[in-house]
Amino acid sequence: MTADLPDLPDLAPLRAALPEGVLVTDPARLETYRHDRARDPGAGTPVAVALVTSTDDVCAVVRWAAEHRVALVPRGAGSGLSGGASAVDGGLVVSTERMRAITVDPVTRIAVAQPGAFNAAVKAAAAEHGLWYPPDPSSYEFCSIGGNVATNAGGLCCVKYGVTTDYVLGMTVVLADGTAVSLGGPRLKDVAGLSLTKLFVGSEGTLGIITEVVLRLVPAQRPPATLVATFPTLDGSTAAVLDISRRLRPSMLEFMDRYTINAVEDETRMGLDREAEGMLVIQSDEPEQHADAEVALITEICTGHGAEVFATSDPGEGEQFVVARRMAIPAVEKRGSLLLEDVGVPLTALGDLCRGMAAISAAREVEIAVIAHAGDGNTHPLIVFDPADADQSARAQQAYGEVMALAIRLGGTITGEHGVGRLKRDWLPDYLGPDALALNQRVKAALDPLGIMNPGALL
Amino acid sequence: MTADLPDLPDLAPLRAALPEGVLVTDPARLETYRHDRARDPGAGTPVAVALVTSTDDVCAVVRWAAEHRVALVPRGAGSGLSGGASAVDGGLVVSTERMRAITVDPVTRIAVAQPGAFNAAVKAAAAEHGLWYPPDPSSYEFCSIGGNVATNAGGLCCVKYGVTTDYVLGMTVVLADGTAVSLGGPRLKDVAGLSLTKLFVGSEGTLGIITEVVLRLVPAQRPPATLVATFPTLDGSTAAVLDISRRLRPSMLEFMDRYTINAVEDETRMGLDREAEGMLVIQSDEPEQHADAEVALITEICTGHGAEVFATSDPGEGEQFVVARRMAIPAVEKRGSLLLEDVGVPLTALGDLCRGMAAISAAREVEIAVIAHAGDGNTHPLIVFDPADADQSARAQQAYGEVMALAIRLGGTITGEHGVGRLKRDWLPDYLGPDALALNQRVKAALDPLGIMNPGALL
Repeated sequence: MTADLPDLPDLAPLRAALPEGVLVTDPARLETYRHDRARDPGAGTPVAVALVTSTDDVCAVVRWAAEHRVALVPRGAGSGLSGGASAVDGGLVVSTERMRAITVDPVTRIAVAQPGAFNAAVKAAAAEHGLWYPPDPSSYEFCSIGGNVATNAGGLCCVKYGVTTDYVLGMTVVLADGTAVSLGGPRLKDVAGLSLTKLFVGSEGTLGIITEVVLRLVPAQRPPATLVATFPTLDGSTAAVLDISRRLRPSMLEFMDRYTINAVEDETRMGLDREAEGMLVIQSDEPEQHADAEVALITEICTGHGAEVFATSDPGEGEQFVVARRMAIPAVEKRGSLLLEDVGVPLTALGDLCRGMAAISAAREVEIAVIAHAGDGNTHPLIVFDPADADQSARAQQAYGEVMALAIRLGGTITGEHGVGRLKRDWLPDYLGPDALALNQRVKAALDPLGIMNPGALL
Repeated sequence: MTADLPDLPDLAPLRAALPEGVLVTDPARLETYRHDRARDPGAGTPVAVALVTSTDDVCAVVRWAAEHRVALVPRGAGSGLSGGASAVDGGLVVSTERMRAITVDPVTRIAVAQPGAFNAAVKAAAAEHGLWYPPDPSSYEFCSIGGNVATNAGGLCCVKYGVTTDYVLGMTVVLADGTAVSLGGPRLKDVAGLSLTKLFVGSEGTLGIITEVVLRLVPAQRPPATLVATFPTLDGSTAAVLDISRRLRPSMLEFMDRYTINAVEDETRMGLDREAEGMLVIQSDEPEQHADAEVALITEICTGHGAEVFATSDPGEGEQFVVARRMAIPAVEKRGSLLLEDVGVPLTALGDLCRGMAAISAAREVEIAVIAHAGDGNTHPLIVFDPADADQSARAQQAYGEVMALAIRLGGTITGEHGVGRLKRDWLPDYLGPDALALNQRVKAALDPLGIMNPGALL
């Protein structure tokens, strides 16, 4: 864990190439850059952190790293949940936290943002012009747009509005040899050359370091109507999700299981039904009369599956339930340490996934709380364990792998929106299969022949 | 032009590896596979055409081609406008015209289509379930979905609904060594591994041959209201486009200049204003009252810029004007041979682009008809010339390059939706710059080291 670095690279030329104060080597400060939110136990200790302020700074860092064969770990806000920003021993963390500028052009509906800007800041800058940047990870208030692009982040609105890549039109990226390249730009249509912008979206820092992104904005969302349905049975809730998806297109369709409902109720005392096996939080942002019609139809579907339904057209009242859903992870976290899954399946397999996870939970004797962006089949099972209990920790780790294997068997993915990072890397070969894995590796080798870009993450 | 092939590859093992009738070598039939709709004068003559019926057939073809170093040219419906499917001398054309199966899952809102299926057939299959596949190239009735994905095709709805890549969730692709790989799948969210699906979208057959695509569908579009505005001045029309885009999000925002209006009027006699310098065809697919409000506001904006406006909420009546817009290219084609441009600029540069093209037209003494997907800044200048007039043909060719150079100067792209193909390849380096070009070449070399995949196209 601690660094044992016989051939520590010479930082002097790097320090000289960077503005005053960019390079940090104070051990106490380095310690705070070892982990992201995944708290990867395998995280190393970096030799330095570069608090880069510009694309030029990043170029200087990468040129130096290429020359000295030093591993680079790009880092946005450190809110990642897969260990994609875990530091590596002897490596250098490139933090974009000082690069937060955002400009918006309301005519072309484009935002240009530096990678360290928070997702919430991009949303706010767009809102000043009556515009909207849709992707909304639950962590939107403290995650960076650079991290969002690097992981192709999702969120709650994706069921209707798609994921991060659907909004990325261009970027500046510093390649593994220190060259900065501009890809795409403020044009909705541009097919000149290979789709390299899209290749870098979701590449988790393994192909280059993104220093600017060009984002597509859309008109402001209408205030949504909200519906909360509590189901006596899990099967009733997953059947309702299918029936809703068959007929409608809500702007949010979220799920919490009984364990999560109780954890959230412990925190909020907002009167959630502790006996319910499943709860859906659903929104419609259609124009008024149409939202009313959608809510009426969803109510009919949910009650048909045995649910109690509460509906409100008051956005503030509705937001309380969305906040409750967003606080699910921290609420469950109070019950123990978490192994956080991100498995997704085709919607029709959602019920099988939930039943399979219940079986894993029973067999391994660990609690698995399930929250889900149910409308797009993307679930976040939270495996709860006591880290002081070695045997339980081992069983939790077993369950962690079994849930991913289950998702693969059901035609699903091991990660829908968090990224592979370092924590899910061991399961990637099973998911991709040898041919697709080899193709990934071929692209990686072509763009990062020295292997200095976020080594150990993703591939 | 005609093939002089000293070392003709041995077709016998390929014929043996393919089902009866797949391999075509009859010279008369080969002739019909030399060109796509771009009528590239540099098109060669293939040694054979493989009318593949399955992914396995494509694998067999590519394995044989890799062994014998034979160039492969993938071909969908042959409707491409950039010569991306021009045959090469001694090469083999891989036509997907027999692979047209489409299946739709209405619950997950997914279509799985073989590459030879027409775009219109995908739309029809989706419509059977009340669903919609938005991308709508003007050629949607006779272009293939495989070609759409290979070029990341656009269309008229993109101004509100985005381009082909926004709807591609996965694919099966045969790589340059003959291995078939499955990428992505029927999941709205999937970030496990690099975004290779998106890399193949828009790769114009230069990285592999797509044999199946997984497409995201959305609920059926509402019947649109239509508005036609004719402007006495070109500046009035481009100013209106900016004002509309600043405040609204129409589902269609198309432009025709005076030359095009007259060519279309010659064909249709529908009473278009032959004196107008610009005409916009605009649609709103918002719910009824909201569409009325949008149409009223757009009317106000257009009349404020001097336009005569005709509006209708009757979808059939509105469709006549969309048909008129779609027939612009064939109508102009009756006036002479065409060099078809596809330049796009940031919306704010649309006026400068139009004025610049008028100057090029005057300087080179060739007519340039301008149609445009104005709402996303994507224009199709049509350079009209008499191929029997060598001097005029040369001036048209000069103008062709000058229009692309102008677009680059204005921060735009040389191709918004048609692809680079073989006709625009010479301008790609100027557009991309040396670093982005080198990055393109590095990815190409990694995935197609023998250079057999559509050589001469794109890169």
